[in-house]
Amino acid sequence: MTKAEIITIGDELLYGHTIDTNAAYISEKITEAGARVIWRTTVGDDLETMTEAIARAMQRADIVIASGGLGPTHDDITKKGICRYFKRPLILYDSVLKKLEERFEKRGIRMPAVNQNQALLPQGAEFIENQLGSALGIAIEDDGRLFIAVPGVPSEMRGMVDGWITETIRKRAGSNITIHRKLRTVGIIESALYEKIAELIDPKALPRESKITVAFLPSWKGVDIRLTAITDDEEHGRRNIGELESKITERIGKYIFGYDRDDMAGTIGDILKERHLTLAAAESCTGGLVSKMITDIPGSSSYFLGGVIAYSNDLKMNLLSVPQIILEKYGAVSAECVSYMAEGAAQKLGANIGLAITGIAGPSGGTEEKPVGTVFIGLAIPGKTETKEYHFGGDRESNRERAATAAMDMLRRYLKEFK
Amino acid sequence: MTKAEIITIGDELLYGHTIDTNAAYISEKITEAGARVIWRTTVGDDLETMTEAIARAMQRADIVIASGGLGPTHDDITKKGICRYFKRPLILYDSVLKKLEERFEKRGIRMPAVNQNQALLPQGAEFIENQLGSALGIAIEDDGRLFIAVPGVPSEMRGMVDGWITETIRKRAGSNITIHRKLRTVGIIESALYEKIAELIDPKALPRESKITVAFLPSWKGVDIRLTAITDDEEHGRRNIGELESKITERIGKYIFGYDRDDMAGTIGDILKERHLTLAAAESCTGGLVSKMITDIPGSSSYFLGGVIAYSNDLKMNLLSVPQIILEKYGAVSAECVSYMAEGAAQKLGANIGLAITGIAGPSGGTEEKPVGTVFIGLAIPGKTETKEYHFGGDRESNRERAATAAMDMLRRYLKEFK
Repeated sequence: MTKAEIITIGDELLYGHTIDTNAAYISEKITEAGARVIWRTTVGDDLETMTEAIARAMQRADIVIASGGLGPTHDDITKKGICRYFKRPLILYDSVLKKLEERFEKRGIRMPAVNQNQALLPQGAEFIENQLGSALGIAIEDDGRLFIAVPGVPSEMRGMVDGWITETIRKRAGSNITIHRKLRTVGIIESALYEKIAELIDPKALPRESKITVAFLPSWKGVDIRLTAITDDEEHGRRNIGELESKITERIGKYIFGYDRDDMAGTIGDILKERHLTLAAAESCTGGLVSKMITDIPGSSSYFLGGVIAYSNDLKMNLLSVPQIILEKYGAVSAECVSYMAEGAAQKLGANIGLAITGIAGPSGGTEEKPVGTVFIGLAIPGKTETKEYHFGGDRESNRERAATAAMDMLRRYLKEFK
Repeated sequence: MTKAEIITIGDELLYGHTIDTNAAYISEKITEAGARVIWRTTVGDDLETMTEAIARAMQRADIVIASGGLGPTHDDITKKGICRYFKRPLILYDSVLKKLEERFEKRGIRMPAVNQNQALLPQGAEFIENQLGSALGIAIEDDGRLFIAVPGVPSEMRGMVDGWITETIRKRAGSNITIHRKLRTVGIIESALYEKIAELIDPKALPRESKITVAFLPSWKGVDIRLTAITDDEEHGRRNIGELESKITERIGKYIFGYDRDDMAGTIGDILKERHLTLAAAESCTGGLVSKMITDIPGSSSYFLGGVIAYSNDLKMNLLSVPQIILEKYGAVSAECVSYMAEGAAQKLGANIGLAITGIAGPSGGTEEKPVGTVFIGLAIPGKTETKEYHFGGDRESNRERAATAAMDMLRRYLKEFK
């Protein structure tokens, strides 16, 4: 098992001005290549802390990948940190300088003097070609461990990670690989899900040699269950994960809407397209979120006709034909209103299926009997209309997210059950 | 200067499945509160490494904030790491358990037994309320240093960071503070913006003692210009930033839609409310995104009546009264169609203002003459209707984001100009 550590470098990261997407990208790629990322560190453009970060990482990991601070300007000091830790001088590589000058010539630009810095590199290091920029990657073997530095510019970093680094790690990692399977669930909270499958994922219950780990990843859009096997026998690992997956599916199958990179809007879209069904939405408290999620999917115009966002009662009456008496008797946030909204959407927009949401997203508008977070969902299908009542009680954002997700899930279950 | 370290916890981060947005959010907020983030660490759901990460951080920093692993399931082991490092037992807090049970009662759900774990907390710690979830934050004073653990669920983490943690850091940070001022622009690209104000933000042009740094933060929603001063003289720092801000505003004022935490939907909403104007939307390619952005704002129901998502031509005719001849002659993606859509929205929904968007988000649907990324925006106001044509030519997501932003900006400029 090749242990890896990633160091990302830059003040903009520590200020929180930049989200560290490089760390995630490098992590995913080198994990796929067979390394195991055990630790990540982020430090600023500061020689002291950078040198300490490199030292710590070289103690913990077999491969250390540092990203950032290789540019030509004064605040790019990663090379200084490398030379300090590895006790090597920076020397001018004429061959590198020559290539740099040619590079600028090709682009018809005179090379700024500052770029000469990029030909100053640590003595005895190996260099990684940069197809997209002027900063070379740096690789140093030290006492059986490998240190690699790549630029922080995402496209330049990706080029080196996808090429040289992935190949190098594959060679070192040997046969060891990491297999992932994600079961994407919706309509059940993390702890309830855990209870249903706890005994299946109890390490004692799993085949000892399979080394499968299980993680729960909750969000407003549902809970993902991630099965991971790290193995030197891929076929065996996949079989173990497949067996556990089918045991889990037996118990909680109805909550699973997809796998790995599936998302719910896409899953629903595939079924609607396949069955030549059309959909229309009527939204109140979600204010367009459901329609937005559905139309995030390319080609959704083939099954999604459109929607009505009826925030005011007048529009619920005029655009969706909700009878005034219903609004007066039960209110706009009621099972009665939402079922008329769903039917109105299907009729007025001429769709096979109408999906409607009404509720109180908050922060204001709640009452004793209908507090913030009260949501009704209506699904009008040929022949009948169903409604569901929810009490989320979160903030405006989470109430809207959860209401939209619950509405999509109600539609998904109908499409799944009634083939 | 209060030195801070952030530890983010979770295998999903080390696998690269999740981008670590929490680390950026916490970094930004505590920097604004006066702390200086010197180091960030990410570890997996592993007791050994987590405990080592806490130990290292407590050596380096005055305040350590850990995020993740506070959930109820087996892979949430942050509390174990805390107890191991601080040598404290986990004990059951009856008061916490009681609140948990009430929480589930309110939602009408039986509390799964596993949630009892969340009442098991380190002895002698202080707890941070969680408005949105069942995991409490944990704060432990140790030898003049402060350790804080918050959940990894972003909304729950944000609640604690924005409240308890920010206040606590402000108290401790003492005299040395970081002042940020964000000018939020829209409708101009980063490099053009830079050209217009380059000489103003040239370090040589800035008062030497002011130590102001300027950063450009571009996104599909516009470009933010961030002015930062780190100073022990708050009044002086604010004056310097204020002077630079007014110089910048002189040059690019018309692109500035707000400051700091302002967002465009909120800015528009304030003006509509103040002038007692009502708004209705008609969306095609944005599929509900504009209505969603507008209704993200609490209280938007007082000025946003609703919207129509007319994906199909039939709906453009039936719901928005776009004449068939217009669709046949000019097509659905045209200035003619979008102006009828805007007028139709205002009339049919009975609003003072109608805002309409039609276009080709892609990836398919483009033509020689109207390629993917072609977008028309229509604004119907009492007495006249204006249209604008855009060619974004990005992917589906960015085209939708940019179309929605352009539509909001067109409305914003109208509201700003015609008082």
